[in-house]
Amino acid sequence: MDEKSSYCERGGVVVDIEENDKSVLMMVESNASSFSEREAFIREPLLNLKSRVVNTSSQIAIVGAKVYPIESLDYEIIENELIKQDWRSRKRVEIYQYIVLKWTLALLIGLLTGFVGFFNNIAVENIAGFKLLLTSNLMLHQKHFQAFAVFAGSNMILATCAAALCAFIAPAAAGSGIPEVKAYLNGVDAHSILAPSTLFVKIFGSIFGVSAGFVVGKEGPMVHTGSCIANLLGQGGSRKYHLTWKCLRYFKNDRDRRDLITCGAAAGVAAAFRAPVGGVLFALEEAASWWRSALLWRTFFTTAVVAVVLRALIQVCRSDICGLFGQGGLIMFDVNSTIPTYNTPDLLAVILIGVLGGLLGSLYNYLVDKVLRTYTIINEKGPAFKILLVITISLLTSCCAYGLPWFAQCIPCPTGSEEKCPTQGRAGNYKIFQCQPGHYNDLASLFLNTNDDAIRNLFSSKNINEFRISTLFIFFIGIYSLGIITYGIAVPSGLFIPVILAGSSYGRLVGRLLGSLSSGLDVGLFSLLGAASFLGGTMRMTVSLCVILLELTDNLLMLPLMMLVLLISKSVADSFNKGVYDQIVKMKGLPYMEIHAEPYMRHLVAGDVCSGPLNTLSSVEKVGNIFHALQMTRHNGFPVIDEPPFVDAPELCGLVLRSHLLVLLKGKKFTKNRELFGSEILRIFHAFDFAKAGSGKGLKVEDLELSEEEMEMYVDLHPITNTSPYTVVETMSLAKAAVLFRELGLRHLCVVPKTPGRPPIVGILTRHDFMPEHVLGLYPQFINHNYS
Amino acid sequence: MDEKSSYCERGGVVVDIEENDKSVLMMVESNASSFSEREAFIREPLLNLKSRVVNTSSQIAIVGAKVYPIESLDYEIIENELIKQDWRSRKRVEIYQYIVLKWTLALLIGLLTGFVGFFNNIAVENIAGFKLLLTSNLMLHQKHFQAFAVFAGSNMILATCAAALCAFIAPAAAGSGIPEVKAYLNGVDAHSILAPSTLFVKIFGSIFGVSAGFVVGKEGPMVHTGSCIANLLGQGGSRKYHLTWKCLRYFKNDRDRRDLITCGAAAGVAAAFRAPVGGVLFALEEAASWWRSALLWRTFFTTAVVAVVLRALIQVCRSDICGLFGQGGLIMFDVNSTIPTYNTPDLLAVILIGVLGGLLGSLYNYLVDKVLRTYTIINEKGPAFKILLVITISLLTSCCAYGLPWFAQCIPCPTGSEEKCPTQGRAGNYKIFQCQPGHYNDLASLFLNTNDDAIRNLFSSKNINEFRISTLFIFFIGIYSLGIITYGIAVPSGLFIPVILAGSSYGRLVGRLLGSLSSGLDVGLFSLLGAASFLGGTMRMTVSLCVILLELTDNLLMLPLMMLVLLISKSVADSFNKGVYDQIVKMKGLPYMEIHAEPYMRHLVAGDVCSGPLNTLSSVEKVGNIFHALQMTRHNGFPVIDEPPFVDAPELCGLVLRSHLLVLLKGKKFTKNRELFGSEILRIFHAFDFAKAGSGKGLKVEDLELSEEEMEMYVDLHPITNTSPYTVVETMSLAKAAVLFRELGLRHLCVVPKTPGRPPIVGILTRHDFMPEHVLGLYPQFINHNYS
Repeated sequence: MDEKSSYCERGGVVVDIEENDKSVLMMVESNASSFSEREAFIREPLLNLKSRVVNTSSQIAIVGAKVYPIESLDYEIIENELIKQDWRSRKRVEIYQYIVLKWTLALLIGLLTGFVGFFNNIAVENIAGFKLLLTSNLMLHQKHFQAFAVFAGSNMILATCAAALCAFIAPAAAGSGIPEVKAYLNGVDAHSILAPSTLFVKIFGSIFGVSAGFVVGKEGPMVHTGSCIANLLGQGGSRKYHLTWKCLRYFKNDRDRRDLITCGAAAGVAAAFRAPVGGVLFALEEAASWWRSALLWRTFFTTAVVAVVLRALIQVCRSDICGLFGQGGLIMFDVNSTIPTYNTPDLLAVILIGVLGGLLGSLYNYLVDKVLRTYTIINEKGPAFKILLVITISLLTSCCAYGLPWFAQCIPCPTGSEEKCPTQGRAGNYKIFQCQPGHYNDLASLFLNTNDDAIRNLFSSKNINEFRISTLFIFFIGIYSLGIITYGIAVPSGLFIPVILAGSSYGRLVGRLLGSLSSGLDVGLFSLLGAASFLGGTMRMTVSLCVILLELTDNLLMLPLMMLVLLISKSVADSFNKGVYDQIVKMKGLPYMEIHAEPYMRHLVAGDVCSGPLNTLSSVEKVGNIFHALQMTRHNGFPVIDEPPFVDAPELCGLVLRSHLLVLLKGKKFTKNRELFGSEILRIFHAFDFAKAGSGKGLKVEDLELSEEEMEMYVDLHPITNTSPYTVVETMSLAKAAVLFRELGLRHLCVVPKTPGRPPIVGILTRHDFMPEHVLGLYPQFINHNYS
Repeated sequence: MDEKSSYCERGGVVVDIEENDKSVLMMVESNASSFSEREAFIREPLLNLKSRVVNTSSQIAIVGAKVYPIESLDYEIIENELIKQDWRSRKRVEIYQYIVLKWTLALLIGLLTGFVGFFNNIAVENIAGFKLLLTSNLMLHQKHFQAFAVFAGSNMILATCAAALCAFIAPAAAGSGIPEVKAYLNGVDAHSILAPSTLFVKIFGSIFGVSAGFVVGKEGPMVHTGSCIANLLGQGGSRKYHLTWKCLRYFKNDRDRRDLITCGAAAGVAAAFRAPVGGVLFALEEAASWWRSALLWRTFFTTAVVAVVLRALIQVCRSDICGLFGQGGLIMFDVNSTIPTYNTPDLLAVILIGVLGGLLGSLYNYLVDKVLRTYTIINEKGPAFKILLVITISLLTSCCAYGLPWFAQCIPCPTGSEEKCPTQGRAGNYKIFQCQPGHYNDLASLFLNTNDDAIRNLFSSKNINEFRISTLFIFFIGIYSLGIITYGIAVPSGLFIPVILAGSSYGRLVGRLLGSLSSGLDVGLFSLLGAASFLGGTMRMTVSLCVILLELTDNLLMLPLMMLVLLISKSVADSFNKGVYDQIVKMKGLPYMEIHAEPYMRHLVAGDVCSGPLNTLSSVEKVGNIFHALQMTRHNGFPVIDEPPFVDAPELCGLVLRSHLLVLLKGKKFTKNRELFGSEILRIFHAFDFAKAGSGKGLKVEDLELSEEEMEMYVDLHPITNTSPYTVVETMSLAKAAVLFRELGLRHLCVVPKTPGRPPIVGILTRHDFMPEHVLGLYPQFINHNYS
């Protein structure tokens, strides 16, 4: 190997990095549990620099509680001779095959996600329904302690099941999953985040978790489930199970997989909320980092399929074969659908709700972040601690749900109500709890219910005085706190439902308090606006939340008010902190590329952050050198230099990928002398051989078996060298280089020298080099400088 | 000037282009009236090449019927020393000012577009209403000829007014306007497309045109109107009217203007359809070429403002002060809102409608294109011909609308109907026309009505047998043909309404024919699905149309069927031709950059299409040379080369813009000797001086007055040179260069040499160089080659 290691000089300090240093300690920041630690970390650039290898494919992320390597995705089209040969020989029929297959996969994603979503709902409704039925029957016979034992016991068993699945099988399945999907679609593949085991645990863990009465939703997990399904379908078949149709090879690349997973995420939202348009918009606004019109259309198709599947399955369930899955289950809330008329006091109330939502939302995000950092420390201690934490929270939740209603006074049943009061058994608004016949406990109607039913009760407009002010207040406090302490335990846990619950309870509270002033809006609509405001305050999505809520409640006439509330709450909350998903992405240490470059990057150039040593390969290189480069570094891309005698002066030929080198070496097409041999390689290999394998399935350096003799031979890299890598001149503004990197979805960006007479490549920029932590580590003077 | 003209060699032919050749004949293709002419044109690359100047800012587009120059927009951030100085000195308060102003402008766009949209509706409802009232009163007294005279005469007067406005004041206001807005948002500024005069004519021309009974809509024009309003607000104040607040300068660039115009387009749709979410999605799916989450939010805010304004104004009109503006006007259609249940025959009928919509839609596009090309020839002959054409079409429309109902038999009024039958006066479904009392003419109910009311009647579910099969058939044929021959006349004319009219009539027809098979869907819903299918077949939008139709009809339960219909019709139509807006963009000769590179571009490299002569400037250049370069070429960007003695060997310093050079020369800060003088220039000039003026307002070469002595002096270009231009190596695949150009929204892309020892820049790629016409002109061998 040519020992062309170039060392970057910065601030007068030349940093010597040991080649063999494998202790990759990137993204250490993610371990820091407070901002002050991060600051301290940034202020020690040398430490940071010493312990990292540049242009590496392995960074570290916290998934679940373990530390795993993460990999960048590559959306660049690798244009090498092999691919070009493939393009030239591609027949028209293959293109049609590809299109048909693309849509078939979209259809399959829709079908499977729809089925899973429905299964999830049926399972939850039956398990939780049975549990609640048992409890209320015992209550009816005045067996209060037995009722609590059954309630808390079954909760704990279910919680333990969910936690065990998460802790032992797939730690990546814990949490919402939306931050991970978001990071994946930004180009960061965290370990096993979309693996089949994660899919399995996500589905069953979510069912157990939601049934266990936790204040968690099944919506976030559904998004993750949809993405896992899409990823599984996009693996390009499996050699193990003999599913290798020739066409499937088109999907063996990061670009097509990204598209499929975007469809999967949209399908997940569509299945969770029965909101097909909302699903598309969610994928567009929150999940995807790259978007184009063609994808809009395919995503739309997928969510339409989900909607049709769900509708058909619900029709099937009409004939009472789905157990306790009544008309509840798949959430679709009834709100007052009369035309709401509103006047100035109403508008003021709405603005108040918006501001309140923004404040409460940003506080929620702050507290969730704090709790999450604490839990991460606990969870890191091992599976036993994870399960213990889950059991603790489960007990706490059970105590709240069963204990708090005792403080509520019984309310006489309303006269002339269409609904039965108090209700017996599973469904209904009016839980009798400890009350005498003819009375109901309003707090029990909210707490001792599935989350979906509690939301339905809060949105209901039928009986304005159904819930007392004190009840709503207690419920809000309870749910707000439980929501904060629940997220982060080792259970698949969505954030939508806790947020909607808390939001609708304070919305209804405001409605009750200001009810006398309002003329047109009833408490149900106030409750809806409350939910919107709190969602806007935590998640900071606007358009997609608006559409999801409209599809949930089927009331288009609320649109202008909902938009107003969302805009206010988002604006207020944005002035305090970031959205909850962005926070979690950051906390997990996933190197997310923002669409905008940081302002201080305008004062740096590309050459300032690219750091050595740079491993370059000659276009016809000795096998031993390549092997050494692969073994000694974890770089994923190597610049290839054309050198004399093939050209007059050294020039940049292109970039070659580690995975391609491995395949080439495995093929052992070497020559004794240093000569151009590309045509022979083109004849033997096919572009398909170099297609990207599923995560964790590619060749490794250890798989190569090369003899001493072979090590001394030469191999022609021309056929597999990407001759059109994107390049920037070293004096290019770092901000503009970052925009280029982000907009085109690159993994490597070559930095070329400005002045002639130097080696043809200065360095390679990777995702890591644009991370604020890295740049500020090198240039701490920008930390407190307020550049615009 | 250094005579460094480099000539590109291709195919062995070195083409000599005269420097003074000012007859820029780019995009001649647009004049070709048939595909065969285009083919012939492409096969003569030499002719094409001889007559064009490279790197020019002036291309030619057909706007209205005249030939105007078009200009590319530049979304690149020009990082020169002046800007960097400005960034460093920028205060925090200025950033807040900018943010506040940004949102204020979004608010203003929403308010103004809402008001204009409402005014438009009131005016149309009153003018058209009065006309129809007069006609029906005369009919009632059996004065059939007088009635026709009044009807046709008032139509003709209104049509002439609209045509005169278009022909004499703003030819750019003719047509829908959506294609032009789409092209603008892609980076192509056609002459006066968003000028104040165009805004004026668009508003009043649209009112007159729609009132004149043409089969045109006011929706497309509203989108254009919204964009014009946004452009006017984004001019960054006006020196003429002393509106130059310092903050407004932030909007004097193409990036911020683009964002504002995107908001304007969304506001236009929102105002036209009262569909705020649909407006956002329209802007996203059809109008905008670049999109980011922040823009989603701002657009959403704008459309929310529109919705609130419209709602408030409609409330005001409740008290009968708006004349004939009843509950009609702003379209919001009532469809049957009972839960539609559908079975297999229904689904088959829906699929049939989808396929039909796709076939009819692609035929419609084909015919509109043909008619448009014919009309362009007529319109080019002068304003008189334009007006004559409009009058002819007006007469034809009047004859159809008044004549065809005579062929319809009278139908006895339904018994037990809630509505009055036959109706007297303006509103109502049941027009008496020539019938006896107690009967109505169903064809007259459709033809002798405003377009909005006709759609409302077609969507109505109240009386299934209201329209006979023959009536629907005649109406469909009439509207389909009139729609085709009307688009392209010199009147602001939207395409939405003709398409919805034709679509809903054949939808209802299918509903009537298959009504006996169907169990759950009534004719009104069939009509809605028909409209959706035809919209999908012509415009090829899916998500936004779906949401617009949902918001129009307020019936979320139709969502799955609507999605199905849209997907089918788009798929079917896409296999024949492109969407109608794309076709018009192409026909108008606007160089629209597609998101995907053409497949044959993969087999070319950047150096293959960049053509000489290249005018480079030295970093410290003689004033005379710069003046000569500005005068002799129409290039918009000049590469700046650092040369000895300032550096060791020539290297690329960056790119300087024509407009910046003009400002610098106007300032006359020259030196006698060839020396670095940048700091002095930085002291005197401010970045604001170089901000982009409104279209047509910048300095011109003719404005410079330089003495002989000054011509011999030197000027330092460093402070205004963009030192971070995006570059590609000459061997970069053309497809990848195109992706870079398109994704980053560039105007110039520098091509640098691969091998050392050559001049530091090979050429500059502009939008034009990526156009298929240009590339295929150079390489005709790719024309019939089917590359994947």
